[in-house]
Amino acid sequence: MVMILGIDPGSRRTGFGIVNAVGNNLEYITSGTIHIDPELALPERLKVIFDSVTEIVVKHMPQEVAVEKVFMAKSADSALKLGQARGAAITAAVNQGLEVAEYEARKVKQALVGTGAADKSQIQHMVKTLLKLPSVPKEDAADALAVAICHIHTRQQMIAVAQAKGFSRGRLT
Amino acid sequence: MVMILGIDPGSRRTGFGIVNAVGNNLEYITSGTIHIDPELALPERLKVIFDSVTEIVVKHMPQEVAVEKVFMAKSADSALKLGQARGAAITAAVNQGLEVAEYEARKVKQALVGTGAADKSQIQHMVKTLLKLPSVPKEDAADALAVAICHIHTRQQMIAVAQAKGFSRGRLT
Repeated sequence: MVMILGIDPGSRRTGFGIVNAVGNNLEYITSGTIHIDPELALPERLKVIFDSVTEIVVKHMPQEVAVEKVFMAKSADSALKLGQARGAAITAAVNQGLEVAEYEARKVKQALVGTGAADKSQIQHMVKTLLKLPSVPKEDAADALAVAICHIHTRQQMIAVAQAKGFSRGRLT
Repeated sequence: MVMILGIDPGSRRTGFGIVNAVGNNLEYITSGTIHIDPELALPERLKVIFDSVTEIVVKHMPQEVAVEKVFMAKSADSALKLGQARGAAITAAVNQGLEVAEYEARKVKQALVGTGAADKSQIQHMVKTLLKLPSVPKEDAADALAVAICHIHTRQQMIAVAQAKGFSRGRLT
Protein backbone atom coordinates (compact mmCIF):
# COMPACT_ATOMS: atom_id res chain seq x y z
CA MET A 1 0.00 0.00 0.00
CA VAL A 2 1.31 3.42 -0.92
CA MET A 3 -0.35 6.82 -0.70
CA ILE A 4 0.59 9.41 -3.33
CA LEU A 5 -0.08 13.14 -3.29
CA GLY A 6 -0.39 14.73 -6.72
CA ILE A 7 -0.01 18.49 -7.01
CA ASP A 8 -0.90 20.75 -9.93
CA PRO A 9 0.73 24.06 -8.94
CA GLY A 10 -0.54 27.38 -10.23
CA SER A 11 -0.25 30.96 -9.07
CA ARG A 12 -4.04 31.43 -8.74
CA ARG A 13 -5.18 27.88 -8.12
CA THR A 14 -3.14 24.90 -6.99
CA GLY A 15 -4.85 21.52 -7.33
CA PHE A 16 -4.13 18.56 -5.11
CA GLY A 17 -5.29 14.96 -5.04
CA ILE A 18 -4.42 11.93 -2.94
CA VAL A 19 -4.64 8.38 -4.23
CA ASN A 20 -3.99 5.18 -2.35
CA ALA A 21 -2.65 2.16 -4.23
CA VAL A 22 -3.60 -1.15 -2.65
CA GLY A 23 -2.14 -3.85 -4.85
CA ASN A 24 -3.58 -3.13 -8.29
CA ASN A 25 -6.52 -1.18 -6.90
CA LEU A 26 -6.65 2.59 -6.76
CA GLU A 27 -8.49 4.22 -3.88
CA TYR A 28 -9.53 7.87 -3.93
CA ILE A 29 -8.69 9.62 -0.66
CA THR A 30 -9.30 13.32 -1.24
CA SER A 31 -8.77 16.15 -3.70
CA GLY A 32 -9.39 19.84 -4.00
CA THR A 33 -8.13 23.24 -5.02
CA ILE A 34 -6.13 25.78 -3.03
CA HIS A 35 -7.45 29.18 -4.08
CA ILE A 36 -4.91 32.00 -3.88
CA ASP A 37 -6.25 35.53 -3.49
CA PRO A 38 -4.62 37.52 -6.34
CA GLU A 39 -4.95 40.69 -4.22
CA LEU A 40 -2.34 39.40 -1.76
CA ALA A 41 1.32 40.34 -2.13
CA LEU A 42 3.55 37.66 -3.66
CA PRO A 43 5.14 36.46 -0.36
CA GLU A 44 1.65 36.02 1.16
CA ARG A 45 0.45 34.12 -1.90
CA LEU A 46 3.42 31.77 -1.72
CA LYS A 47 2.80 31.32 2.01
CA VAL A 48 -0.78 30.20 1.28
CA ILE A 49 0.52 27.53 -1.11
CA PHE A 50 3.34 26.42 1.21
CA ASP A 51 1.11 26.29 4.31
CA SER A 52 -1.73 24.51 2.50
CA VAL A 53 0.53 21.83 1.00
CA THR A 54 2.23 21.39 4.39
CA GLU A 55 -1.18 20.98 6.04
CA ILE A 56 -2.28 18.37 3.47
CA VAL A 57 0.97 16.42 3.95
CA VAL A 58 0.77 16.54 7.75
CA LYS A 59 -2.91 15.53 7.73
CA HIS A 60 -2.82 12.65 5.22
CA MET A 61 0.84 11.59 5.45
CA PRO A 62 1.36 10.51 1.81
CA GLN A 63 4.59 8.58 1.16
CA GLU A 64 5.54 10.33 -2.07
CA VAL A 65 4.59 13.34 -4.14
CA ALA A 66 4.18 13.78 -7.89
CA VAL A 67 3.95 16.99 -9.91
CA GLU A 68 3.63 17.71 -13.58
CA LYS A 69 6.85 18.77 -15.24
CA VAL A 70 6.67 22.05 -17.11
CA PHE A 71 8.43 22.27 -20.43
CA MET A 72 6.95 25.21 -22.16
CA ALA A 73 5.21 28.12 -20.55
CA LYS A 74 3.11 30.52 -22.57
CA SER A 75 5.22 33.57 -21.77
CA ALA A 76 8.12 34.62 -19.56
CA ASP A 77 5.67 36.38 -17.26
CA SER A 78 3.42 33.35 -16.76
CA ALA A 79 6.51 31.12 -16.43
CA LEU A 80 7.81 33.26 -13.57
CA LYS A 81 4.46 33.11 -11.75
CA LEU A 82 4.12 29.38 -12.33
CA GLY A 83 7.72 28.85 -11.23
CA GLN A 84 7.14 30.68 -7.97
CA ALA A 85 4.02 28.62 -7.22
CA ARG A 86 5.88 25.41 -8.08
CA GLY A 87 8.79 26.49 -5.89
CA ALA A 88 6.49 27.00 -2.89
CA ALA A 89 4.55 23.75 -3.43
CA ILE A 90 7.57 21.50 -4.07
CA THR A 91 9.49 23.08 -1.19
CA ALA A 92 6.60 22.34 1.20
CA ALA A 93 6.75 18.66 0.22
CA VAL A 94 10.54 18.25 0.44
CA ASN A 95 10.52 20.20 3.71
CA GLN A 96 8.33 17.40 5.10
CA GLY A 97 10.93 14.86 4.00
CA LEU A 98 9.00 13.61 0.95
CA GLU A 99 10.44 12.68 -2.41
CA VAL A 100 8.91 14.56 -5.31
CA ALA A 101 8.74 13.00 -8.76
CA GLU A 102 8.12 15.05 -11.90
CA TYR A 103 6.25 13.78 -14.95
CA GLU A 104 5.86 15.34 -18.37
CA ALA A 105 2.24 16.10 -19.28
CA ARG A 106 2.60 13.72 -22.23
CA LYS A 107 3.59 10.90 -19.87
CA VAL A 108 0.63 11.59 -17.55
CA LYS A 109 -1.75 11.45 -20.51
CA GLN A 110 -0.20 8.24 -21.76
CA ALA A 111 -0.45 6.59 -18.33
CA LEU A 112 -4.14 7.49 -18.03
CA VAL A 113 -5.54 7.41 -21.54
CA GLY A 114 -2.91 5.41 -23.42
CA THR A 115 -1.95 8.28 -25.73
CA GLY A 116 0.16 11.37 -25.14
CA ALA A 117 -2.26 13.47 -27.18
CA ALA A 118 -5.32 13.07 -24.91
CA ASP A 119 -7.30 16.20 -24.09
CA LYS A 120 -8.40 17.56 -20.69
CA SER A 121 -11.88 16.02 -20.78
CA GLN A 122 -10.47 12.55 -21.55
CA ILE A 123 -8.11 12.87 -18.55
CA GLN A 124 -10.98 13.95 -16.30
CA HIS A 125 -13.13 11.08 -17.51
CA MET A 126 -10.37 8.51 -16.88
CA VAL A 127 -9.68 9.94 -13.40
CA LYS A 128 -13.39 9.53 -12.61
CA THR A 129 -13.45 5.96 -13.98
CA LEU A 130 -10.19 4.75 -12.41
CA LEU A 131 -11.07 6.17 -8.99
CA LYS A 132 -14.77 5.18 -9.23
CA LEU A 133 -15.88 8.74 -8.48
CA PRO A 134 -19.55 9.72 -8.65
CA SER A 135 -18.72 12.76 -10.80
CA VAL A 136 -15.86 14.34 -12.73
CA PRO A 137 -13.48 16.26 -10.42
CA LYS A 138 -12.69 19.91 -11.15
CA GLU A 139 -9.86 20.57 -13.58
CA ASP A 140 -7.04 21.40 -11.12
CA ALA A 141 -7.99 18.54 -8.81
CA ALA A 142 -8.33 16.15 -11.77
CA ASP A 143 -4.84 17.10 -13.02
CA ALA A 144 -3.42 16.52 -9.54
CA LEU A 145 -5.14 13.13 -9.24
CA ALA A 146 -3.93 12.26 -12.76
CA VAL A 147 -0.26 12.88 -11.95
CA ALA A 148 -0.66 10.88 -8.71
CA ILE A 149 -2.10 7.94 -10.71
CA CYS A 150 0.73 8.28 -13.28
CA HIS A 151 3.26 8.03 -10.44
CA ILE A 152 1.55 4.92 -9.05
CA HIS A 153 1.64 3.25 -12.48
CA THR A 154 5.31 4.14 -12.93
CA ARG A 155 6.21 2.79 -9.47
CA GLN A 156 4.32 -0.46 -10.15
CA GLN A 157 6.09 -0.89 -13.49
CA MET A 158 9.47 -0.34 -11.82
CA ILE A 159 8.64 -2.89 -9.12
CA ALA A 160 7.47 -5.37 -11.78
CA VAL A 161 10.68 -4.88 -13.78
CA ALA A 162 12.81 -5.29 -10.64
CA GLN A 163 10.95 -8.49 -9.71
CA ALA A 164 11.27 -9.87 -13.26
CA LYS A 165 15.01 -9.16 -13.19
CA GLY A 166 15.32 -10.83 -9.79
CA PHE A 167 13.43 -13.83 -11.15
CA SER A 168 15.55 -14.17 -14.29
CA ARG A 169 18.70 -13.85 -12.21
CA GLY A 170 17.26 -16.55 -9.95
CA ARG A 171 16.90 -18.87 -12.93
CA LEU A 172 20.35 -18.19 -14.27
CA THR A 173 22.33 -18.78 -11.14
CA MET B 1 18.38 49.27 14.98
CA VAL B 2 17.07 46.93 12.34
CA MET B 3 18.71 43.99 10.62
CA ILE B 4 17.76 43.31 7.00
CA LEU B 5 18.43 40.20 4.94
CA GLY B 6 18.71 40.81 1.22
CA ILE B 7 18.34 37.84 -1.14
CA ASP B 8 19.20 37.60 -4.83
CA PRO B 9 17.56 34.31 -5.85
CA GLY B 10 18.84 32.29 -8.77
CA SER B 11 18.53 28.66 -9.82
CA ARG B 12 22.32 28.08 -9.84
CA ARG B 13 23.48 30.69 -7.34
CA THR B 14 21.45 32.53 -4.73
CA GLY B 15 23.16 35.51 -3.13
CA PHE B 16 22.46 36.73 0.38
CA GLY B 17 23.61 39.66 2.46
CA ILE B 18 22.76 41.00 5.90
CA VAL B 19 23.00 44.67 6.80
CA ASN B 20 22.35 46.26 10.16
CA ALA B 21 21.02 49.83 10.29
CA VAL B 22 21.98 51.69 13.45
CA GLY B 23 20.54 55.17 13.12
CA ASN B 24 21.97 56.47 9.86
CA ASN B 25 24.89 54.06 9.91
CA LEU B 26 25.01 50.88 7.93
CA GLU B 27 26.86 47.93 9.39
CA TYR B 28 27.90 44.91 7.31
CA ILE B 29 27.06 41.64 9.05
CA THR B 30 27.65 38.92 6.50
CA SER B 31 27.10 37.94 2.88
CA GLY B 32 27.72 35.03 0.56
CA THR B 33 26.46 32.80 -2.18
CA ILE B 34 24.45 29.58 -1.95
CA HIS B 35 25.75 27.34 -4.72
CA ILE B 36 23.21 24.90 -6.12
CA ASP B 37 24.55 21.75 -7.77
CA PRO B 38 22.91 21.68 -11.24
CA GLU B 39 23.24 17.88 -11.24
CA LEU B 40 20.64 17.57 -8.48
CA ALA B 41 16.97 17.01 -9.31
CA LEU B 42 14.74 20.09 -9.06
CA PRO B 43 13.17 19.23 -5.67
CA GLU B 44 16.66 18.74 -4.18
CA ARG B 45 17.88 22.04 -5.65
CA LEU B 46 14.90 23.88 -4.17
CA LYS B 47 15.53 22.18 -0.83
CA VAL B 48 19.11 23.50 -0.82
CA ILE B 49 17.81 27.06 -1.31
CA PHE B 50 15.00 26.68 1.26
CA ASP B 51 17.23 25.07 3.90
CA SER B 52 20.08 27.55 3.37
CA VAL B 53 17.82 30.62 3.65
CA THR B 54 16.12 29.08 6.70
CA GLU B 55 19.55 28.49 8.29
CA ILE B 56 20.63 32.09 7.61
CA VAL B 57 17.39 33.45 9.12
CA VAL B 58 17.60 31.22 12.20
CA LYS B 59 21.28 32.08 12.75
CA HIS B 60 21.17 35.86 12.26
CA MET B 61 17.53 36.62 13.08
CA PRO B 62 16.98 39.54 10.65
CA GLN B 63 13.77 41.51 11.19
CA GLU B 64 12.80 41.86 7.53
CA VAL B 65 13.75 40.52 4.13
CA ALA B 66 14.16 42.25 0.77
CA VAL B 67 14.36 40.70 -2.69
CA GLU B 68 14.67 42.16 -6.15
CA LYS B 69 11.43 42.21 -8.10
CA VAL B 70 11.58 40.54 -11.50
CA PHE B 71 9.80 42.21 -14.36
CA MET B 72 11.27 40.73 -17.44
CA ALA B 73 13.02 37.43 -17.72
CA LYS B 74 15.11 36.56 -20.76
CA SER B 75 13.00 33.58 -21.78
CA ALA B 76 10.09 31.47 -20.53
CA ASP B 77 12.55 28.72 -19.62
CA SER B 78 14.81 30.96 -17.51
CA ALA B 79 11.73 32.64 -15.98
CA LEU B 80 10.44 29.27 -14.80
CA LYS B 81 13.81 28.37 -13.22
CA LEU B 82 14.15 31.80 -11.62
CA GLY B 83 10.55 31.62 -10.39
CA GLN B 84 11.15 28.27 -8.71
CA ALA B 85 14.28 29.57 -6.96
CA ARG B 86 12.43 32.72 -5.87
CA GLY B 87 9.52 30.59 -4.64
CA ALA B 88 11.83 28.49 -2.45
CA ALA B 89 13.78 31.49 -1.09
CA ILE B 90 10.76 33.71 -0.35
CA THR B 91 8.84 30.79 1.18
CA ALA B 92 11.74 30.08 3.54
CA ALA B 93 11.59 33.67 4.80
CA VAL B 94 7.80 33.89 5.23
CA ASN B 95 7.84 30.44 6.85
CA GLN B 96 10.05 32.00 9.56
CA GLY B 97 7.42 34.72 10.07
CA LEU B 98 9.35 37.45 8.24
CA GLU B 99 7.91 40.10 5.95
CA VAL B 100 9.42 40.15 2.50
CA ALA B 101 9.60 43.39 0.51
CA GLU B 102 10.19 43.42 -3.25
CA TYR B 103 12.06 46.17 -5.08
CA GLU B 104 12.42 46.80 -8.78
CA ALA B 105 16.04 46.66 -9.98
CA ARG B 106 15.67 50.29 -11.08
CA LYS B 107 14.72 51.31 -7.55
CA VAL B 108 17.67 49.44 -6.03
CA LYS B 109 20.06 51.21 -8.42
CA GLN B 110 18.50 54.57 -7.64
CA ALA B 111 18.77 54.00 -3.89
CA LEU B 112 22.45 53.12 -4.15
CA VAL B 113 23.86 55.14 -7.01
CA GLY B 114 21.23 57.85 -7.46
CA THR B 115 20.24 56.75 -10.95
CA GLY B 116 18.12 53.85 -12.18
CA ALA B 117 20.52 53.27 -15.07
CA ALA B 118 23.59 52.31 -12.99
CA ASP B 119 25.58 49.26 -14.05
CA LYS B 120 26.67 46.23 -11.99
CA SER B 121 30.15 47.56 -11.23
CA GLN B 122 28.76 50.88 -9.92
CA ILE B 123 26.42 48.94 -7.61
CA GLN B 124 29.28 46.78 -6.35
CA HIS B 125 31.44 49.84 -5.77
CA MET B 126 28.69 51.63 -3.79
CA VAL B 127 28.01 48.51 -1.71
CA LYS B 128 31.72 48.39 -0.84
CA THR B 129 31.81 52.11 0.03
CA LEU B 130 28.54 52.25 2.02
CA LEU B 131 29.42 49.16 4.07
CA LYS B 132 33.13 50.10 4.41
CA LEU B 133 34.22 46.75 3.03
CA PRO B 134 37.90 46.01 2.31
CA SER B 135 37.03 44.69 -1.15
CA VAL B 136 34.18 44.47 -3.64
CA PRO B 137 31.81 41.58 -2.78
CA LYS B 138 31.01 38.99 -5.43
CA GLU B 139 28.16 39.79 -7.80
CA ASP B 140 25.34 37.72 -6.21
CA ALA B 141 26.31 38.80 -2.69
CA ALA B 142 26.65 42.43 -3.82
CA ASP B 143 23.15 42.35 -5.37
CA ALA B 144 21.74 40.89 -2.15
CA LEU B 145 23.48 43.54 -0.02
CA ALA B 146 22.25 46.24 -2.44
CA VAL B 147 18.58 45.26 -2.10
CA ALA B 148 19.00 45.11 1.70
CA ILE B 149 20.43 48.66 1.67
CA CYS B 150 17.60 49.81 -0.63
CA HIS B 151 15.08 48.44 1.87
CA ILE B 152 16.81 50.22 4.77
CA HIS B 153 16.69 53.54 2.85
CA THR B 154 13.03 53.05 1.99
CA ARG B 155 12.16 52.22 5.61
CA GLN B 156 14.05 55.31 6.87
CA GLN B 157 12.27 57.53 4.34
CA MET B 158 8.90 56.14 5.43
CA ILE B 159 9.73 56.73 9.09
CA ALA B 160 10.88 60.28 8.29
CA VAL B 161 7.66 60.99 6.38
CA ALA B 162 5.56 59.55 9.21
CA GLN B 163 7.42 61.68 11.75
CA ALA B 164 7.04 64.83 9.63
CA LYS B 165 3.30 64.18 9.29
CA GLY B 166 3.01 63.65 13.03
CA PHE B 167 4.84 66.93 13.63
CA SER B 168 2.66 68.93 11.20
CA ARG B 169 -0.46 67.44 12.73
CA GLY B 170 0.95 68.46 16.12
CA ARG B 171 1.23 72.08 14.93
CA LEU B 172 -2.24 72.18 13.38
CA THR B 173 -4.24 70.91 16.31
